[in-house]
Amino acid sequence: MPRPSAPAIDVKPPFSIVRLSHAIAEQMRSPIEIVHTLLARIEERDGRLQAWARVEREQAEQAAVAAEGEIAAGRRRSPLHGVPFGIKDIFDTAGITTSWGSPLYAGRVPDADAALVARLKEAGAIVLGKTHTTGFAYFDPAPTRNPHHLEHTPGGSSSGSAAAVADGMVPFALGSQTLGSVLRPASFCGVVGLKPTFGALPADGMLPFAPTLDHAGLFTRTVEEMAWLWAVITGSDPIKAAANRRLARPRWPIEGELEPEMAAGLDLALARLAQAGFEIDELSLPESFQRLPGATLIVFRYEGAQTHKDRFERHGSKIGEKLAVLVESGLRIDRRRYEEALALLAQARRDYAELIQEHPLWITPSALGPAPKGLASTGDPRANAPFTALGVPAISLPFGRAPSGLPLGMQLAAAHGRECALLAAALVCEKSL
Amino acid sequence: MPRPSAPAIDVKPPFSIVRLSHAIAEQMRSPIEIVHTLLARIEERDGRLQAWARVEREQAEQAAVAAEGEIAAGRRRSPLHGVPFGIKDIFDTAGITTSWGSPLYAGRVPDADAALVARLKEAGAIVLGKTHTTGFAYFDPAPTRNPHHLEHTPGGSSSGSAAAVADGMVPFALGSQTLGSVLRPASFCGVVGLKPTFGALPADGMLPFAPTLDHAGLFTRTVEEMAWLWAVITGSDPIKAAANRRLARPRWPIEGELEPEMAAGLDLALARLAQAGFEIDELSLPESFQRLPGATLIVFRYEGAQTHKDRFERHGSKIGEKLAVLVESGLRIDRRRYEEALALLAQARRDYAELIQEHPLWITPSALGPAPKGLASTGDPRANAPFTALGVPAISLPFGRAPSGLPLGMQLAAAHGRECALLAAALVCEKSL
Repeated sequence: MPRPSAPAIDVKPPFSIVRLSHAIAEQMRSPIEIVHTLLARIEERDGRLQAWARVEREQAEQAAVAAEGEIAAGRRRSPLHGVPFGIKDIFDTAGITTSWGSPLYAGRVPDADAALVARLKEAGAIVLGKTHTTGFAYFDPAPTRNPHHLEHTPGGSSSGSAAAVADGMVPFALGSQTLGSVLRPASFCGVVGLKPTFGALPADGMLPFAPTLDHAGLFTRTVEEMAWLWAVITGSDPIKAAANRRLARPRWPIEGELEPEMAAGLDLALARLAQAGFEIDELSLPESFQRLPGATLIVFRYEGAQTHKDRFERHGSKIGEKLAVLVESGLRIDRRRYEEALALLAQARRDYAELIQEHPLWITPSALGPAPKGLASTGDPRANAPFTALGVPAISLPFGRAPSGLPLGMQLAAAHGRECALLAAALVCEKSL
Repeated sequence: MPRPSAPAIDVKPPFSIVRLSHAIAEQMRSPIEIVHTLLARIEERDGRLQAWARVEREQAEQAAVAAEGEIAAGRRRSPLHGVPFGIKDIFDTAGITTSWGSPLYAGRVPDADAALVARLKEAGAIVLGKTHTTGFAYFDPAPTRNPHHLEHTPGGSSSGSAAAVADGMVPFALGSQTLGSVLRPASFCGVVGLKPTFGALPADGMLPFAPTLDHAGLFTRTVEEMAWLWAVITGSDPIKAAANRRLARPRWPIEGELEPEMAAGLDLALARLAQAGFEIDELSLPESFQRLPGATLIVFRYEGAQTHKDRFERHGSKIGEKLAVLVESGLRIDRRRYEEALALLAQARRDYAELIQEHPLWITPSALGPAPKGLASTGDPRANAPFTALGVPAISLPFGRAPSGLPLGMQLAAAHGRECALLAAALVCEKSL
């Protein structure tokens, strides 16, 4: 019987990862029962949603049985012990097919786990399966649909992870971001995405695209859950951090292109944050920031072409029609332009490190608008790419819905390594909106 | 009274951070007593050693009283609660002078803690004071001496942190590394230094030198303590990681310049590791690695000059004679060469990420030899700089002594984000040597 003092337990999905962890620790819910509930939900709903490339029923059941035994014996490894999660099919998983979203690699089974997967498994989290990624995490779409409207894209490249978390199929999932592949699908699917500081989560065993820009990232349903997850994964606790209520509103070149529902929705949200006690300052950006989007794309395309050129030579457009075009055009980028772009990124990082001292939290839209209609395109990553290029932590959280019912997301960013301050402020935003 | 089952307690310094934490948790030792013991040791010994720029007696005592109260009340924040540490005077500390090793900034008192300092304070660790850094973490020496021989340099730029830990004045300390400023002083002082993956520890609030290369790092006396500290700070536990016993021995261009005691000592150590079951392979390096040292210095000098040029214009050679020369020469570096160097670094990172899949642990000397005689130079960082430029985790651990009695260090490196695998292997090396 549940103890009277225990937190309310979710009896069906979506599960709160925080309550799930407590319920497992108190042995009020068993990992096996949770795994079975989630597997049933996936079986019932994924035919339409297509979030999962591969569900690992047997391995998940075995891990759940082991977790249950260890916890019952008083050997709970961490607050994640017995908690299931999903893994974008870009991260290597030992003994589990990792096909990078490409039929060319349908039979690829790695020997070893990616570093981040290994860390989560050591903490006792349970691999539920691999989620769909766009081909090689580029723009050739995954089959995944948006859980809020099946005719709309979930965003990409972490399409399956965002959709699976949004649909309550799993409490958290791993993604990766080279331009906007965590924060954009989070925004489109109405969940929370975190792209931490470059290097803060390990990249080894994650398929590279453009190593100068590649980040690992996380999805949860709420900021509260993300803050909890961040504390468990990294040992540093956002809940204890003081929330800064000064937000800076920078104007990126792209913002003239915002769709009306995003522009109006964000203005409304900012007004509500101001009422809730936030101080919001306009922030004008130095010259390096005007050139940052272009330089980021040069680095992205140049390095992406280098990463995939051998594969392209072997397989041609079978690597993905859009990726094939990228390789061909990326190989034509003059090395000189690439080198200049790298230097511009370094300059913008220095400028950001100075600006952020006076303006410790930046707020921007997470995307140009809600998820576009159709599955052929995963949408535009330009709202997210600057923070990827800067290597600083950024989070997307849902703040409302467009008239169509599709979610809208706002993006907060902070200084290098200040995930706790970022999450603390995002927690207050979540409560205020 | 100590319980019979408790681990052995250190009754006087050097304290093992692991045993100290246990003893505090069990209330067999009080944080106040520990702080007083360390303060007495510093008072007794630092007149000769000069490891400390500033000892914060009152603040440390207050923090110790608070920690003792919280722990007694059952509110232990983390295994670091009540454990004192030292901070290189490059990291901002709220309310505590942070002068960057320069008399020009003798009165500089930051409002806020650097992100890493904030994280450690939230975990309950006690700031004992600020340790000497070379001026602005460049090569103008600190007054610190090597605890193994006062006429020899402790290395730099994290001179005070390395010496203080080596002399048992504090169980752990923070450092920073842009070329070799953690691993070199660790090697010279006979302690363990860890430079994690670029971005794995937060950089905000740490004085920049060359932001493309700047890392935060840690010092402890043993690998066992470093593994414990890493687990507490990051939530990922090296003790649980399986130790790989395959070591690759790459030959960097610099190795022809090794001093005989280092070359012979390392060969002997490698022979002992082979006897202990390690497999050691020679590894030939791709062309990008031959050019990496030169490219790293270009980035270091170019960005360092940018960082310090305003300061140099205001203060001339008062910023430090060597730094003034650096700024003047760094400002003359053609931007084109800098851009090419950035691209070479990116290339070498891609090559490393491929090589490391087959050769997951690399072993090299931590320095050209033992600590050189004299305090005018802090020694040569070239053994460490490649792993700094690559942004991958590297550790220095002591493996023996030169005939002079001065310590020698070996350096291990691993893949991006694989600190646990690195520390697991280093633990086995420590036990085997």
